[in-house]
Amino acid sequence: MKETLFSYEQLHQFAHQVFLSIGCNDEDALLASEVLLSADLRGVDSHGIARLSGYVRLWEVQRINPRPSIQILHQTPSTAVVDGDGGLGLVVAPRAMKIAIEKARSVGTGWVSVQNSNHFGIAGYHAMMALKQDMIGIAMTNASALVAPTFSSERLLGTNPIAVAIPAGNEPPFVADMATTTAANGKLEILQRKGLSTPEGWVQDEKGHPTTDAHALKTGGALLPLGSDVMHGSHKGYALGSIVDIFSAILSGANYGPWVPPFPAYVPMPQGQPGLGIGHFFGAMRIDAFRTENAFKKDMDQWLLRFRTANPVEGQKQVLVPGDPERTYELQRKKEGIPLLAPVVNDLQELGKKFAVNL
Amino acid sequence: MKETLFSYEQLHQFAHQVFLSIGCNDEDALLASEVLLSADLRGVDSHGIARLSGYVRLWEVQRINPRPSIQILHQTPSTAVVDGDGGLGLVVAPRAMKIAIEKARSVGTGWVSVQNSNHFGIAGYHAMMALKQDMIGIAMTNASALVAPTFSSERLLGTNPIAVAIPAGNEPPFVADMATTTAANGKLEILQRKGLSTPEGWVQDEKGHPTTDAHALKTGGALLPLGSDVMHGSHKGYALGSIVDIFSAILSGANYGPWVPPFPAYVPMPQGQPGLGIGHFFGAMRIDAFRTENAFKKDMDQWLLRFRTANPVEGQKQVLVPGDPERTYELQRKKEGIPLLAPVVNDLQELGKKFAVNL
Repeated sequence: MKETLFSYEQLHQFAHQVFLSIGCNDEDALLASEVLLSADLRGVDSHGIARLSGYVRLWEVQRINPRPSIQILHQTPSTAVVDGDGGLGLVVAPRAMKIAIEKARSVGTGWVSVQNSNHFGIAGYHAMMALKQDMIGIAMTNASALVAPTFSSERLLGTNPIAVAIPAGNEPPFVADMATTTAANGKLEILQRKGLSTPEGWVQDEKGHPTTDAHALKTGGALLPLGSDVMHGSHKGYALGSIVDIFSAILSGANYGPWVPPFPAYVPMPQGQPGLGIGHFFGAMRIDAFRTENAFKKDMDQWLLRFRTANPVEGQKQVLVPGDPERTYELQRKKEGIPLLAPVVNDLQELGKKFAVNL
Repeated sequence: MKETLFSYEQLHQFAHQVFLSIGCNDEDALLASEVLLSADLRGVDSHGIARLSGYVRLWEVQRINPRPSIQILHQTPSTAVVDGDGGLGLVVAPRAMKIAIEKARSVGTGWVSVQNSNHFGIAGYHAMMALKQDMIGIAMTNASALVAPTFSSERLLGTNPIAVAIPAGNEPPFVADMATTTAANGKLEILQRKGLSTPEGWVQDEKGHPTTDAHALKTGGALLPLGSDVMHGSHKGYALGSIVDIFSAILSGANYGPWVPPFPAYVPMPQGQPGLGIGHFFGAMRIDAFRTENAFKKDMDQWLLRFRTANPVEGQKQVLVPGDPERTYELQRKKEGIPLLAPVVNDLQELGKKFAVNL
């Protein structure tokens, strides 16, 4: 499919103007654009500017508050619950992560659970905020139910990602950012566009039987938890997705399980919601709350080097550390630009017309 | 294979006497026995009394200190690094978890990384210590390298388990306790004894090629991270195992990656170890550091009930919540006794002779 290259600055400026147009103040519009575009830079195309019109549609149906009053509802020296006031997750999340970092500065670690938020872009951005502070960063979020627990024919969990960013000395840092499913929903969409089937172990049909139909989710099917089936540990992926759901939503008072609001604005809200909006969970741990930064970074460098120089299996060039592929994308795309598929460009141009903003 | 039933009390008394015989004080011997036997009660037979002679052999080669001076090396209000002084992990771990719980009581959460320890039994025991305090408990440990990262033909990670225990109101709690591999090593041992092959996706051979040889680890093969292969997300299982390794050992100053001490006393120690012993990581989060216990428990009960009553796929009776199978084992084995295989009984009888303790 045809791709066009855009510079980071060009797309950032466009997103900035769009967020201003829906009523964000300048600071929030800049921040939301930076978070959104970080996905495109890091090669996570499904979570970047391709979603911009989706956020706007949520605003149109009044499910996003462009001027949120983000507040701490309850706190202790190391914890807080934050009310996102229906704001963009792209804004609520970095603010909440900042609170976690401030608490870590003061008592060693900080842990923040967030209610009443929306889709927050890539988890990795928020976790990586800790790196500059010589802290370990953790970010997770729940999401609308597309995943069936092991043995369930019902969808009860989102793709519920976990990101963990760990600083190092001379080596590039460790940055894991992963959905707790076997395959991300974005990968299904790519197969759908190409008219291909999925590998076995990615999805099940509406009765819970294995299928390779890339469209299975449209007829009541479900994504499978990491592990695919019980013989390969799907109960572990199910447990991980559950932990993300509970930390993000039950610690905060957000919606959980099958009651999490969907991202597409045309999908009706689940009935009988027990909480407010979607939930996130953030953590920051100061390295020197455990060991001296020097001692930690020396060992972390040795760890990273040992893994990056491990003997690869035949046919593979190198063993990668989590975050390596995304860093390669980021270096390349900062220099050469961000490629967008024709339907995404069209979608952005339509959006631009609506707000009289040029792409 | 023939099994004999033993009562919990009988096995606990036996383990207690054995731990006393290797020089533990009475308090430690009781605690170690309780932690060890909790595995047998919960159906995790690979980590229970079957390992008792393994701990004794580690003591015989002076890799376990029966009278450790367990100390805090460094701390902040919410964190600590603990030196296990080469003690039994079965003793060091609950002491460290207690420190995490005390810190949570004071500032909302507590996080403890442990160096210079040994195998700590089942992770779930330590995480579950938090439940009685109305806290969420987290426990993880690294272990000697049996797992190959994605694309690696070398073994660089242990089975590195994660346990998370979450209290509820009227419903039984959520207790996840899982190795970050597709299959636990204990399951391989069962197949070996039966002369069976493994399912695909559990192990690779010494060159990193897929195999179903249950003996592959004896010839340089490796267990595979949760996800099995990169198409099914093994890079995620690899990332999870890495996070456990780094939190347990690089935050504490223990050994990590390929340098973690092996459990079998006859396996030589890795050369050039960068740290001390094996590492653990514990966390405790007070529920009411986030929300009132009532509000949390009401939502947690609703979450648990919704998942436990989800529509099962054809052929399955019920959707289970993490911890349900182990709780069923515990109820049954407390009442009916703990079944031990003939070779385990023989091994314990040999051990009994050595210390003049009757089984």
